[in-house]
Amino acid sequence: MSTRLSHLNDKGEARMVDVSAKSVTSRTAVAEGFVAMAPETLDLILDGKAPKGDVLATARIAGIMAAKRTHELIPLCHPLPLTQVVLDFTPSRDPSGITVEATAKVEGKTGVEMEALTAVSVACLTIYDMCKAVDRAMIFSGIRLIEKTGGRSGHFRAP
Amino acid sequence: MSTRLSHLNDKGEARMVDVSAKSVTSRTAVAEGFVAMAPETLDLILDGKAPKGDVLATARIAGIMAAKRTHELIPLCHPLPLTQVVLDFTPSRDPSGITVEATAKVEGKTGVEMEALTAVSVACLTIYDMCKAVDRAMIFSGIRLIEKTGGRSGHFRAP
Amino acid sequence: MSTRLSHLNDKGEARMVDVSAKSVTSRTAVAEGFVAMAPETLDLILDGKAPKGDVLATARIAGIMAAKRTHELIPLCHPLPLTQVVLDFTPSRDPSGITVEATAKVEGKTGVEMEALTAVSVACLTIYDMCKAVDRAMIFSGIRLIEKTGGRSGHFRAP
Amino acid sequence: MSTRLSHLNDKGEARMVDVSAKSVTSRTAVAEGFVAMAPETLDLILDGKAPKGDVLATARIAGIMAAKRTHELIPLCHPLPLTQVVLDFTPSRDPSGITVEATAKVEGKTGVEMEALTAVSVACLTIYDMCKAVDRAMIFSGIRLIEKTGGRSGHFRAP
Amino acid sequence: MSTRLSHLNDKGEARMVDVSAKSVTSRTAVAEGFVAMAPETLDLILDGKAPKGDVLATARIAGIMAAKRTHELIPLCHPLPLTQVVLDFTPSRDPSGITVEATAKVEGKTGVEMEALTAVSVACLTIYDMCKAVDRAMIFSGIRLIEKTGGRSGHFRAP
Amino acid sequence: MSTRLSHLNDKGEARMVDVSAKSVTSRTAVAEGFVAMAPETLDLILDGKAPKGDVLATARIAGIMAAKRTHELIPLCHPLPLTQVVLDFTPSRDPSGITVEATAKVEGKTGVEMEALTAVSVACLTIYDMCKAVDRAMIFSGIRLIEKTGGRSGHFRAP
Repeated sequence: MSTRLSHLNDKGEARMVDVSAKSVTSRTAVAEGFVAMAPETLDLILDGKAPKGDVLATARIAGIMAAKRTHELIPLCHPLPLTQVVLDFTPSRDPSGITVEATAKVEGKTGVEMEALTAVSVACLTIYDMCKAVDRAMIFSGIRLIEKTGGRSGHFRAP
Repeated sequence: MSTRLSHLNDKGEARMVDVSAKSVTSRTAVAEGFVAMAPETLDLILDGKAPKGDVLATARIAGIMAAKRTHELIPLCHPLPLTQVVLDFTPSRDPSGITVEATAKVEGKTGVEMEALTAVSVACLTIYDMCKAVDRAMIFSGIRLIEKTGGRSGHFRAP
Repeated sequence: MSTRLSHLNDKGEARMVDVSAKSVTSRTAVAEGFVAMAPETLDLILDGKAPKGDVLATARIAGIMAAKRTHELIPLCHPLPLTQVVLDFTPSRDPSGITVEATAKVEGKTGVEMEALTAVSVACLTIYDMCKAVDRAMIFSGIRLIEKTGGRSGHFRAP
Repeated sequence: MSTRLSHLNDKGEARMVDVSAKSVTSRTAVAEGFVAMAPETLDLILDGKAPKGDVLATARIAGIMAAKRTHELIPLCHPLPLTQVVLDFTPSRDPSGITVEATAKVEGKTGVEMEALTAVSVACLTIYDMCKAVDRAMIFSGIRLIEKTGGRSGHFRAP
Repeated sequence: MSTRLSHLNDKGEARMVDVSAKSVTSRTAVAEGFVAMAPETLDLILDGKAPKGDVLATARIAGIMAAKRTHELIPLCHPLPLTQVVLDFTPSRDPSGITVEATAKVEGKTGVEMEALTAVSVACLTIYDMCKAVDRAMIFSGIRLIEKTGGRSGHFRAP
Repeated sequence: MSTRLSHLNDKGEARMVDVSAKSVTSRTAVAEGFVAMAPETLDLILDGKAPKGDVLATARIAGIMAAKRTHELIPLCHPLPLTQVVLDFTPSRDPSGITVEATAKVEGKTGVEMEALTAVSVACLTIYDMCKAVDRAMIFSGIRLIEKTGGRSGHFRAP
């Protein structure tokens, strides 16, 4: 691993790293996060007919759309022609909450870690938004990169 | 507190809540989060001349700009004429990482929790992006609403 | 009704109309449209458990989000602080298809016709996108303003 | 043609289809639509010196710009490096109105139907916006894909 | 006039200035700029039938649309509900080129200088883009604020 | 050089030029501009501890982010997968001000002149925004393309 911050030049000024010479390869990234919430909030999401479907359906759409706008949000990210974005939600009773997992793929010159992490973050924010009227104390934790394949730096798997 | 999810109608379909009849009041929200990282990563950010300034300067700008786009990212958020967004970063040695705090203000019909939380989330993502070449194992945790004032639901302070 | 095109000045050049002097009033607009499709396509949307929910749930979210971006898409539209956007879908067997209806509300200086029409249009496009693998011959028709209240021009109801 | 909705997984949840393995080919799509309007409205657009030019010039620009943002508007669309977008307008006296036609091209892994249809839809919306002060009863109809070339599914021509 | 940079706090960190307590007043700003070009380039724009209309028509639309997105482009700008944006173009033979003037209005808590300057800048860029195939040596100069009214700082007129 | 405006068809209507048949090559563009300001304004930017860093750091980020959105701002620009964007700032005492230089790179079918010019323009606007409280009379001048490599039209260097 590098011991320099590649996004900063010699004078420490921000720059968008030159990836012109990098080769186009298949790259994937998987990220995850957890929205901790009161059991009653989880019930409201999971319970009944439609509410369940739509809170997570809305968060899923929000996450996918945000992944496509990652380079607009993160200043030094390169624009990437994403070939796939998938979000999965897994409810948990103990601790009470929902695990969000996002997978992003691209054939490109740079990795898609930021796209996967952005999808997770915005999905978490959307769940918060849709439930905040009943539970303002929700907390997001464990947002991190799980796995990454492709590119010169090779395979990464979270320890 | 309500026991219904105000963003879902009787059939559980997503909707943007009608705030026409709500009054315009001064509202503020403060959110925070923590980016855990290796001590060496923190050194690289804090140490030296420019890198420190620019990693956090970039994250600060990214957070402010994202707050202004919250309603584009979170499907059911109302557009709001933000009157202020401030981000603060506090480095920590034990645990090793950086605390991100965002404050948002508006004179509006709805609260600015989502704007503050979005600012924190995107600032965390930007820190990750700028340091990921040296530390892919960074984790975001404790992203949550700290305080909220204004509006009918009154004052909220995280327990 | 005016007999001039208010968006064009004396020389016929495009301009964003000055609404500074207009008063802020409650305004609503309702628009609708119809996506005609093969009966089998409608079956795939309505049938089964999840597909139904998610095609329309996705179109609903897309329509709401597009309404918020109307002023970015339509060159001479003013930005508006929307207070509500609602989309409704009604399946029909004869003719085969889905009616999309959108309602938009604002407390503002100009009407929300364009927001309601944009929501309908993007919801129709999303339905097309999600079903085009099985039916490329879908047609959108009858996209129009149904009703409008508020503002100086008063109440409008489609004939 | 498939009999499954490719945008939904086994559980009916929305997903962005994986196109990683698809080959890059030349693809084109042509879409059209019709804005029906009162004869006097059409006169105002066609008549005189400048107004004619600018209503359609504005709609043309709006359509082109919207085509480039299709993947931001339609949740499950892939971002595409469009190589061309063209809009044509043909006035009609009987019925009274304007036909909008859009052509989009790309060298890519997925088709450009949505880009062409989005260009047509936003051009129609822009015509409505620029003439609504004199004619709120305009209706969009016949918005559909006319032709599509390239890609595995081959040539499509509207029946 | 202040002798501090209001966008920087005591530590010199960027922040979005708090305008919560400022009163809503009518504000206008006028900005201008000049695109210097070869006489032949100017001929191509002014000459003939359609080209003239459309280069400037396109630049006008681009400037208006950019004004509405100023707060997305300029990191510390507040979002503003613009009530009017107008662009004017004046060709000049000596020196050879086109003067771009933009006027922006708002009823708001902060001024619209940035919106007017952004409209001028993006209109200049669009003229460049549309003529660069025949003249890459065009230069933008004299982009500046001409006049500003409203707000606590009062009337400004360029010296 | 062409003697026709390639962005206009035979009827002078705007169109996005077809670049399908152009080959993908390495392309770079360098643009520059100058923000003239009072010596005291320059002092405020350069002087002291943090203000210096952050005014230019903010302008740098704004310029990079704007480069990535060039195709959203300039109506007939093609979307491009930028591989690098760099901004440099050089203060000057006589005349008093700051020179902004931007370099953009891409492996693509069209050049990156507009991306470099857009980065310069938005960086200038951001400097203006951050200093306007102390100096409303700043002027942008000399915004132009300095150099361009790659593509069929070959090497260009400003005279």
